[in-house]
Formats: sequence, C-alpha cells, structure tokens
Amino acid sequence: MLRETKLKEIPEIKIHGRTTACRDPLTLFWTASGFECNVTGSELWVELEVTFHLYEPWFSYTVNGDWVGRQMLQKGRYWIPLFRGMSPETVKNVHFFKDLQAMSDDGESYIHIHALRHDGTFYPVADKKLKMEFIGDSITSGEGLFGAKSEQDWIPMFFSAVRSYAYQTAERLDAEYRIFSQSGWGVHNTWDNNINGALPKYYKEICSLMPGAENERLGGKQPHDFASWQPDVVVVNLGTNDAASFDQPAWTDTQTGERYKMRREADGSYCMEDVKAFQQAAKAFLGLLRSCNPSAQIVWCFGMLGMDFQQYIQEAVSAYAQEASDHKVLYLPLPPMTPESAGSREHPGFKCHQQAAEVLAGYLAELL
Amino acid sequence: MLRETKLKEIPEIKIHGRTTACRDPLTLFWTASGFECNVTGSELWVELEVTFHLYEPWFSYTVNGDWVGRQMLQKGRYWIPLFRGMSPETVKNVHFFKDLQAMSDDGESYIHIHALRHDGTFYPVADKKLKMEFIGDSITSGEGLFGAKSEQDWIPMFFSAVRSYAYQTAERLDAEYRIFSQSGWGVHNTWDNNINGALPKYYKEICSLMPGAENERLGGKQPHDFASWQPDVVVVNLGTNDAASFDQPAWTDTQTGERYKMRREADGSYCMEDVKAFQQAAKAFLGLLRSCNPSAQIVWCFGMLGMDFQQYIQEAVSAYAQEASDHKVLYLPLPPMTPESAGSREHPGFKCHQQAAEVLAGYLAELL
Amino acid sequence: MLRETKLKEIPEIKIHGRTTACRDPLTLFWTASGFECNVTGSELWVELEVTFHLYEPWFSYTVNGDWVGRQMLQKGRYWIPLFRGMSPETVKNVHFFKDLQAMSDDGESYIHIHALRHDGTFYPVADKKLKMEFIGDSITSGEGLFGAKSEQDWIPMFFSAVRSYAYQTAERLDAEYRIFSQSGWGVHNTWDNNINGALPKYYKEICSLMPGAENERLGGKQPHDFASWQPDVVVVNLGTNDAASFDQPAWTDTQTGERYKMRREADGSYCMEDVKAFQQAAKAFLGLLRSCNPSAQIVWCFGMLGMDFQQYIQEAVSAYAQEASDHKVLYLPLPPMTPESAGSREHPGFKCHQQAAEVLAGYLAELL
Amino acid sequence: MLRETKLKEIPEIKIHGRTTACRDPLTLFWTASGFECNVTGSELWVELEVTFHLYEPWFSYTVNGDWVGRQMLQKGRYWIPLFRGMSPETVKNVHFFKDLQAMSDDGESYIHIHALRHDGTFYPVADKKLKMEFIGDSITSGEGLFGAKSEQDWIPMFFSAVRSYAYQTAERLDAEYRIFSQSGWGVHNTWDNNINGALPKYYKEICSLMPGAENERLGGKQPHDFASWQPDVVVVNLGTNDAASFDQPAWTDTQTGERYKMRREADGSYCMEDVKAFQQAAKAFLGLLRSCNPSAQIVWCFGMLGMDFQQYIQEAVSAYAQEASDHKVLYLPLPPMTPESAGSREHPGFKCHQQAAEVLAGYLAELL
Repeated sequence: MLRETKLKEIPEIKIHGRTTACRDPLTLFWTASGFECNVTGSELWVELEVTFHLYEPWFSYTVNGDWVGRQMLQKGRYWIPLFRGMSPETVKNVHFFKDLQAMSDDGESYIHIHALRHDGTFYPVADKKLKMEFIGDSITSGEGLFGAKSEQDWIPMFFSAVRSYAYQTAERLDAEYRIFSQSGWGVHNTWDNNINGALPKYYKEICSLMPGAENERLGGKQPHDFASWQPDVVVVNLGTNDAASFDQPAWTDTQTGERYKMRREADGSYCMEDVKAFQQAAKAFLGLLRSCNPSAQIVWCFGMLGMDFQQYIQEAVSAYAQEASDHKVLYLPLPPMTPESAGSREHPGFKCHQQAAEVLAGYLAELL
Repeated sequence: MLRETKLKEIPEIKIHGRTTACRDPLTLFWTASGFECNVTGSELWVELEVTFHLYEPWFSYTVNGDWVGRQMLQKGRYWIPLFRGMSPETVKNVHFFKDLQAMSDDGESYIHIHALRHDGTFYPVADKKLKMEFIGDSITSGEGLFGAKSEQDWIPMFFSAVRSYAYQTAERLDAEYRIFSQSGWGVHNTWDNNINGALPKYYKEICSLMPGAENERLGGKQPHDFASWQPDVVVVNLGTNDAASFDQPAWTDTQTGERYKMRREADGSYCMEDVKAFQQAAKAFLGLLRSCNPSAQIVWCFGMLGMDFQQYIQEAVSAYAQEASDHKVLYLPLPPMTPESAGSREHPGFKCHQQAAEVLAGYLAELL
Repeated sequence: MLRETKLKEIPEIKIHGRTTACRDPLTLFWTASGFECNVTGSELWVELEVTFHLYEPWFSYTVNGDWVGRQMLQKGRYWIPLFRGMSPETVKNVHFFKDLQAMSDDGESYIHIHALRHDGTFYPVADKKLKMEFIGDSITSGEGLFGAKSEQDWIPMFFSAVRSYAYQTAERLDAEYRIFSQSGWGVHNTWDNNINGALPKYYKEICSLMPGAENERLGGKQPHDFASWQPDVVVVNLGTNDAASFDQPAWTDTQTGERYKMRREADGSYCMEDVKAFQQAAKAFLGLLRSCNPSAQIVWCFGMLGMDFQQYIQEAVSAYAQEASDHKVLYLPLPPMTPESAGSREHPGFKCHQQAAEVLAGYLAELL
Repeated sequence: MLRETKLKEIPEIKIHGRTTACRDPLTLFWTASGFECNVTGSELWVELEVTFHLYEPWFSYTVNGDWVGRQMLQKGRYWIPLFRGMSPETVKNVHFFKDLQAMSDDGESYIHIHALRHDGTFYPVADKKLKMEFIGDSITSGEGLFGAKSEQDWIPMFFSAVRSYAYQTAERLDAEYRIFSQSGWGVHNTWDNNINGALPKYYKEICSLMPGAENERLGGKQPHDFASWQPDVVVVNLGTNDAASFDQPAWTDTQTGERYKMRREADGSYCMEDVKAFQQAAKAFLGLLRSCNPSAQIVWCFGMLGMDFQQYIQEAVSAYAQEASDHKVLYLPLPPMTPESAGSREHPGFKCHQQAAEVLAGYLAELL
C-alpha cells in the first residue's frame, strides 16, 4: 500500500546543496541541489511544487547511481513517479537533482519538495569520502551540455547538472558536492561589465543572488552556516567572464549613473590597472574562501573556454598564497574546448567536461 | 498564442514504426516508434493517452537531433511540455520515441498520441538517406541500457530505444529505422522453449504479439502493408534465446499438453536434430523476409551476448543464400559483451551497443 | 667473459616459424620466423649471415617482450649486439624476428643464424597457451605497416612482422604463432591473374614459393612435417587479391602460352563461373588445411582491404563446413581500413591492424 | 653509382641540437640531436664514429617523418645503411636522432657523423613553424620509454628520444626542437643532494656537463651561441629530483668536505629554508632563461612523476613573473603517471608521454 510521508518526517533523507533549515517544503536554489534517499518498497513518487515566471526548472534523477530520467517541469503542485515495479525488499538509492542553476533573472524560479509517496522504509544515506564545493559561471552551471551544436537560445533545456565536470569529478572521487554558480558572472564583474555580477559578493549568504520578495520569503538572503558543511576541496572556475568584459561596452549603474568598464589600451593589450583590480578581487575572494573554509584545499581552475586571462589568474593565485602564507591554494589549467568537444551555445560539451573531470579528478587524487 | 491541433490534421508530421492507419489517435506499438515534426514557434506540448496494467511505458525525445528528456508515464490522458522559450521563427525538429518494447506480457501497455499544442507552423520532415529495419530480442529492445550493473528487476525503466545499437547505427548511416523485437524470444522458440515465442510467426502483421482484446481493437493483428515502407537494410539479431533454450526445462503447451524442448546429447553437445530444426526455421525466416522485402540487403548479426550458436547460424545463413541463389544475405558477428561493456540485468550496456554500432555501421557503409 | 656458442649447441633455444631441421646455421624463411632464448649474463650478440639479390632482409627483436630494435641488414656474415650492461644474474627473454616475408621475387633473400656470443647460461623457453598459424597475403605480411602514407615503393623497409594483427592477436591470446604469407597472392591466383600465385599449392612444403637453386639447397622444397607443430587455431586471411584480379588484364603462362583471367560480365558483375572456380579453390584449401591440422579451429578472416568478395567467401566457407560436416570452420569479417587507419602503400596501417587484432582476439577468446 | 660526400660538403643538411661549429665530423652531444636531409637517389648510408666507455649510444631515424629503425651502436668507425631500393627521382626526408642523452657518467660516450654515401642530390630542409627547447631530467631524456615494466637496469637501451613527450609535442605543433636534459638532476641539486647536478649551472655552454678531456677537445665546454637559434617556446620540466632529495642522505663534496642536504622537519614537512633555496634557484634560472631567450614563451611543466613539490614550483614561477614583470612565464601541470601509463624503471611510459604531449601541445596551440 502506497502512503505519503512529509519530507520533514524523513530524517534519513540527505539534502544536497545550500538551502535553509526549512523542510516543509524543502526549497532547491542551486543547480545540483536536491535530495537523496535510501528506501525499500516497489514504488516511489515525489510531490513537487514548481513556480517560475520566465525560466522553468528541470530535474534529473538517478536510481542506484545510474541516471534514468530528466524532464521539464510545469507550474503547480503535483506528484511525479520515480520508480515502480521494483523488488520491494531491496534498498534503492534515489538521488533527485535540480537540473537548472539559480536563475538570477527570474525571481520566481524554484522547485519545492513536499513529500514522498512510497510503500517502503527509509534508511540513512552514508557519507561519501569527500566533500567538494564548485564555484563558477556558465561552465559550472552546465550551460551547453544539452542541445545540438547549432542551438543559440538561452533556455533551461540546455543546462545540465548531471553531465557537468562537477558531477563527473565528484563521481570519480566518490565525493558529495555543491555548486555555487551563475552564468555570465565573474570575480570582479559580469561578461558585460556589471559590477553587481561579482560572485564573491554573494558567497556568505544561502542564495542572495536571486532577486525579489519571494527569495526574501524563502530565506535565500540569510547568512549561510559554513560550519554545517565544510568542504575538503573548493574548486573555483571563474575568470572567463572577467576576461570577456574587456571587449564589451561599459555598463551603467542606473541608480548612481556611474559607468564601469574593463579597458584595453590603444595597442589592444589589457589595461593593467583594470587587470590589477581583477587580481585584487581574486586575492580578496581567496581570502574570503579561506576564512569560510579553514582547512580546504583550494584549486582555481581555468581554461575550458579561452585561456586569454590565465597569466593574470595564475599570478594572482600564487601572490595570494605567498602573501597569506597559505600553501593550500593552487592553480590548474583545464583542457580547452575544441570543435569536437563543443556543446550547444558555443559552450563546452559533454566531451570537454569529461576531459576536464579527468584532469581535475586525476590531479586531486594525486594531491590529496 | 498556443493552440491545439489534432495529429490527424498535421500532414507534415512523420510517423515512425509499424502502426495502423489511424491517426486519431496514433497508437505506438513498438520500441522506437513515435512521431517526428518540424515546427516553428516558441513552445510545444504533446497530448498523450497512456494505458497499462503491469508495465508503464516511458518516452524519450530529441530536439534538433539531441536527446533532451526521458520520463516514466502515468496512466491517463494529459499534456506534456516538450520545449518552451525557443526563438519562434526557427524550425525545430522534435522526435518523440516510445522508450519501451511492445510488452507481450501486458496487453494494455500502449501510448496513444492525440494532439500537439503549439504556436507555430508545421513543415514536412525530409527523408533520410536510408531505411533500416532491426529484428531482434532483448538486445534489440535495449534491455539493460539503463540502470546500475547490479539491477535485476525486469522493469520498463531499464529498457531504452535511444541508447541501443539500432539508434546509433541509424544515426551513423543517416537512416530512418524501425524495430521489431521481443525480449526472450527467438527464431524457433523462446529462451524457455515456448514455441509461441518464435518472432517469424508474427512478422506479417502490424503487431500481433500483443495479446488480448485491446490489441484486437487497436488493429495490431491486421496485416502489415510492406509496400508502404521498404527497408534498404534488414538487420536480424536473433539466436541468443534459441541457444539458451538448450539449457532450460521443457515448455508444455497447456492446450495440447505437448512438451517442447531443445535438447543436448549425453555428452553435453547440442542435439543435431534440434539444431537442424532451428536452422530450418532460420532459413524459412530468411525466405519470408525476402518475400516481404524484395530488394533489401539482409544482415544477420550475432554475438553480443554469447557466441555459442554462431556456427549454426552462419551455416544456415549461407545455406539459405546458396539454396535460394539470394546473394544479398550476409552473416556478421558483433563484439561480445565484456565486464566493462555490460549494462544492467547482465545485458549489453551502452558501451557494448556503441561497439556493435561501430562495427555494423562501418560494415554497412562499406557494403552499400 | 664473452664466449661464442653455436646455435646447434643450445638446445634450450626455441625456434619460431617453419624451417628445416638444420641448426648450423638456422635458416629463416618466413616473416616472424626467428629464435627466442632465455639467458642470463650482461651481454648478448647474434652472428648472422645475410644474403640477398634485390630485397635486403630486416630484423626486429624484443627484450622481455618489449620491442627495442629494428634494423636493415647488410650482406655478409657478422655479429650484431642485442643487449649489454644488463644485470648478469637475471634471466632475459630475447626474441629475434625476421621482419620481412619470404620474397618470392628474390631467390637469395635469407637470414641465417649461426651463433650467439654471451656471458650467461641458457634456460628453456616455456610454451605459451596457444599455437596459431596465420595464412595470408600482403596484409598478413605486414606490408604498409612502416612508412609515411605517401610512400609507394615496394621495399622491405615498409614490411613489418611485429606491428601486424598476427603479432598483436598472438600477444593478446598468449599464443606462439607462425606466418605463411605472400604479398599479392591469393587462393586461386595472384592479383594479376597468375595461377602460380595460389598459396594453397605451396602449403605442404616448408617454403617452396622461394625460387631457385639456393632454396633447393636450403631445403625449402622439402615436405613440411605437420605433426611437429599442430596449431590450435588456423587463421586464413585470403581473397583480397582474388577479388582484385577481376579488374586486371589476363596473365599468360609463357611456357604453355595459355591465358588466364577472372572475368566480369558485360554489366560489370562478377562472372559467376569464375567466382565458382574461386569458391571451389577455397573449399579445397579448407579441406587441405583440415587434413594437415585435424583438430584446429579454422577462421577465415576478410575485409581489411575491401569487402567486395565477402559474400562469396562466406558462402564457400559455410558450404565447405556443411559438405564436410566440419563444424570448426567459421567466417569472420575484420574492420575495413579507413583514411585514418591507413598505413603506407595504401595498405592497412598500425591502427587498422590493431582494430583487427582486437576483433579477432576478442572473438577467439570467446570461441575457445 | 654510390658516392661518398663529407658532411661538411653538404650545406643543405640541417643540424639538430646544440653542438659546435665543427662538421668534420659533426659531434652529437644531446638526446634528439642529429641531422636531417632531403635527398634524391635510391640509396643512403651514413658513416658514424662511435666511442664509449660504459654506455653505448643508440640511434633512431625517420624516413619522410615515419620512424623506421633503431639500433645499438658498436665502437668504431663504420657505415650503416639507412635506405635502399627507393625511387631515385623522389626527394626523401631522412632524420637521424641520437637516441641517448649526454651521459655525464661516461666522458667518452659520443656519436660523430663523418659522411653520407648516396646516389642522389641534396636539397635544403625547410624550417618548421616553431622552435622549441625542452629542459629537463630523466623524463625529458626519455628514460623508461623502452623496456618491459619490470626492467630495473639503468642502461641506454631503455632511453628514447623519439617516443618522448618532447618529440610528440613538437610533431603536433610542427616544431623543430632541442633537448637539454640529464637524468637525476634538478634545479638546485640532484636526487641525492649533489649540488653539482644543478642543470642551470651548465646552461650557458654547449655541453659542459660531460666530463673529461674528450669533452674539452670536442668543444663541449665552449659558450653556446644563443643568437644562432632562438626558441619560440622554452619548456622546463624540472623539480622532480629536487623534491626527491628531501628523502635522500646528505651528499658530501669530497674536495671541500662540505655536506649538503635538503631537509625535512621533525613533523615530516619540508624544511622551508631549503624550499626557499630551491625557489631562489628556480627564479634565478628563469631569469637566466629570459636573458638568453629574450622573446620566448616559457612554460614550467611538472607532475608526470609525483606532484609533491608543485605548490612551491608554482609559487616560484609566479613570483618570478611578478618580480621581473615578465608575463610570458607560466606554470602547467602535466598528467601524472598511473600504473597503466608507466614504462620501465618506474618511469613514465609511452602512454604517459602521449598524455603529456596532448596536454602541452593543446595548451601551447591555444596560447600562441
């Protein structure tokens, strides 16, 4: 007999991703956030509540570690079947992933999890060997991992949590992981020089880059409790949009009227004053990461989508390490996207993410 | 503005897979059957009607040739979103696949397609370079292509149309394809000696292996109109279950009381009388295939799941070719599953299907 | 202290390839023929005697199974160093390969092995798990396995024993192997319709396809003692030149004045009378192979360099199996050469041979 | 008709590797040094003069870019055939490689090239797109690239110029390259704390690390003329032996009696004073490289054989870049050796070098 159990009444469940303490419902903010359960019984459903204005969320899920489904979500509160007809007595591991980044352009785009319908018993989910946090931009949000190469629409269908280098790296290292990412954003500003799109400014709250009253209500602007989940490794994959902003028009803050722009010199070279501002922001972010994650190995990755800026990132990372006498901070180049490894929207595809995961996981396995 | 159009009112749509002439609704019998459309507009939904008793159907779909979603279906008649937020003016190619074989154990397991909801215009779908038909057992039904290696449940979740060697071979050769397959069945009998599970007996009807009144009502028992779709290549991938039946208990026909069994000799070797019965059935099937598909290249593939029987299959294929003076019939071994290429339920996994597609497509590209 | 020991005084040595009983010196006829020894000591030299008129022999050698050297040989009798400076007490396995086929166009092209210079002790070479014989044409002679793709000269430099599918298949299966092959030859005639170039005519002697008095003197025309070395597997890779001869001018026997030609019909199709002559020759060869190798599994491989003829080969193989009730004879297609896997002289390169070895070894591992 | 031409009389020939101005004979000091010629004619021989006390040199050669031979050399002056029987009118490119590093433990180990015997005409060798210099230790000397995994002897047979990441990287980038390397040596000292084995100390002379009167006579101690060959890229692959020396006994300078040792602290961590000495040496070396190669992109590679020291190397590289305002100096980790990619003597094998070349060439292609 199927019965319905509120999520808050299932202490054995494991929650993935930064979120609030609320479990009735559980709100999913970030890509790759979700829940994981070990359950007996023949059948399992999940009760979702989905809201959005522009960008509908998607989800993916795995059964016993193997990806079996992915679908676009409609608005409303409803039940979705996850498995049926399975041997009742065995324990099944089910992992539900939000398959879309926090959408800073749509303050209503959320998945909430209310309950599970099932005919089994829940068991605790064991911890993995490692905890990892990935901080990045569109690459880390998995943009371009679905869709034909020719696709140009910026829509949720083409984002993926489960095909990205983050997922794959975590699989190879037997790690639990979280993602903190935003497409188009950087260390100092966005790809189009908007200084509000500097990810470090949002690092200390649960999910403060989602706009509006709904995010306020859901608690996204509350401080994040770093002590509750300390990563062994923090991977930063930022800089691509900072580099791009040197070739974009200025951005004007409509409130102050001030204009912002990363500049090039007359000879086409980067304006070193602006490069230094970027480097200063990078070093400050590393200091912030260290203060929040006192014992983590930090690795700054770069290069999947252009390497123009790497000289300056590498120098900033090492300068921070030496100035702070913090010798657990390294720089690691990742394999560049090629025509063969490209996905949709001129972003790295599955093959490029696979190559990146191979390099990063091999590197960390050796390092740790 | 979204509007609803009955499938029968969209002549530009292409139907895949053997089915009846009915389009209101369109009934999907076989795995990999479905529809394909070229459509403009920003959004597309499909109206399904789903029935089943034991085994729920799943579907997968591609957008512009790239697989974007897969989900388990609930009973009932309802709308499912396929894409939204896309550039309205571009033509999108959407291909909907039934992701489960015709289930001969569940006479109510069907997907029906009623209508599409959209805000665009439909355009014709161009023909591909080739037409192919694949005839087979669980391997061709894609059993084991989803799910962890440890999975043992025989459930729809673990079948796949879109990961199989048939899909991959067709992609490599730019072919449209159909599948005629049934898990556990063979040329002469099933894996457990049931002589009703001989696929050739059902080849001339649309889908006569589905039992019961519902199949009768839907027209599955009607003769198939071979002239309407003539394949350039017919791939037969049968024999694995015939070989297995030598090691299984006899099957008794409960109506006649007769017992059937493929036998081994006292020394463990195959009983040659039974082998000859198999060979006779294989040759007769090749004759039937030829009569239905006068100009097709026929390739009998074998070996993904054990090669024990291949000597006899190879001999039967060549004997047919010589006796019938039909020199467009060849035998091709496919790479055997290894521990690394296994999927769930001790069946070939994606890697094994990929290897098979590489061999088969390479072979056909050279041959044609 | 280095000392010289005649080969005939080293009973521990293992001789590879068909040859006579003479060991003073040992004559190497076929490609991949040679010697293998287990020896202690710090240094090893080999005393060769090399003759040729047009086509100089080459050799390759392995130390402990790893290929370390390959060189062109000059005329004369001289010593060549194989290793030096190694730990004296360990046993080193050294395998010397003739790296050139028996050259039927140069009756003086031979390597003779007289003696070894060393400071160690010889130990017996253990038998491998399997014995294999490979019978073929230029593909099996390793033509095209060295040299840039653009090379067109037909010279020994571009032949290789050690890169071929035969070597690689034997390595994967832990097999000792022999090669019986001739570039340009076939089952019924050569690529240019010469009926003297039918390999089956030479199968019963040690190496009767080498012309002239020198071969007479060396014993190449003596009957081969099949009982002395019975293969577990015989691989036949012939038919490519037979197929090619349909597109070549007739060959005239200058002694009888008779003209020979495999013909095409006016419509371009193969003349079936000639195809039947080929099939007859193929079946007769299989009968001969069986009479010489009573318990071997025979596999006829084909397809690395064009598949045009495979229908007829496959039919001939199965017809033989059925007519002779000999069910240890199978046909196996091998992966066709592609632009990426081509070597020099428009022949299969290392990658194509590697693919063939993978298929063949995987197949045999499953079969045996 | 074959004729003999002194090397000094062939101005069209291209010399590879650091050497003196002498061409009668040409002396080969470093691994991968040699000569390259474009020549018509049917046949080519080379006259070598080979000397050694302990470690015999080997050579490899390519014909039209494809590796065809490799052999151990005997003492003496003699002729070796490189090709014969080729079409006389075509131009053949032949590249002769010393296949052994400069052996600092054997002051007599040299190859000298006197003359070529041929029947053709020489033509100039065109320049490649890039010039590269590789500076390294045993990895760059190709130690372990030949020989079975179990081999432990430190002998020339197991070194290779032609299988190394340097050769492969140069091939992928269409680059001419030189190698400056010594097995066991480092930036500050050798693997066993010998401060004479610091490669930077020898960088300004042609080949001053070879000991003895013979090297004096041959001119190895003369200053190298950097202006004569300016690389576009300098790859440094050093640090592995410096890292290892922390775990080795002290080395005593027998002339001064002084003891040298890179130390660990009581808790097992590196002694930071010694790490700083290493970093100081690394920065000084980068300064020296820049002064000798004013416009080269410098890349410090590390990690094929242990990554323990990379934090300090990365910091030193970036510190140099910032202190010197020299922004053409980068650090690049290379893929670590795994059990599958290991060669002989517990050194990286071909597969590991291939992975390194893929990363390095991909990186440079993007960077340049």
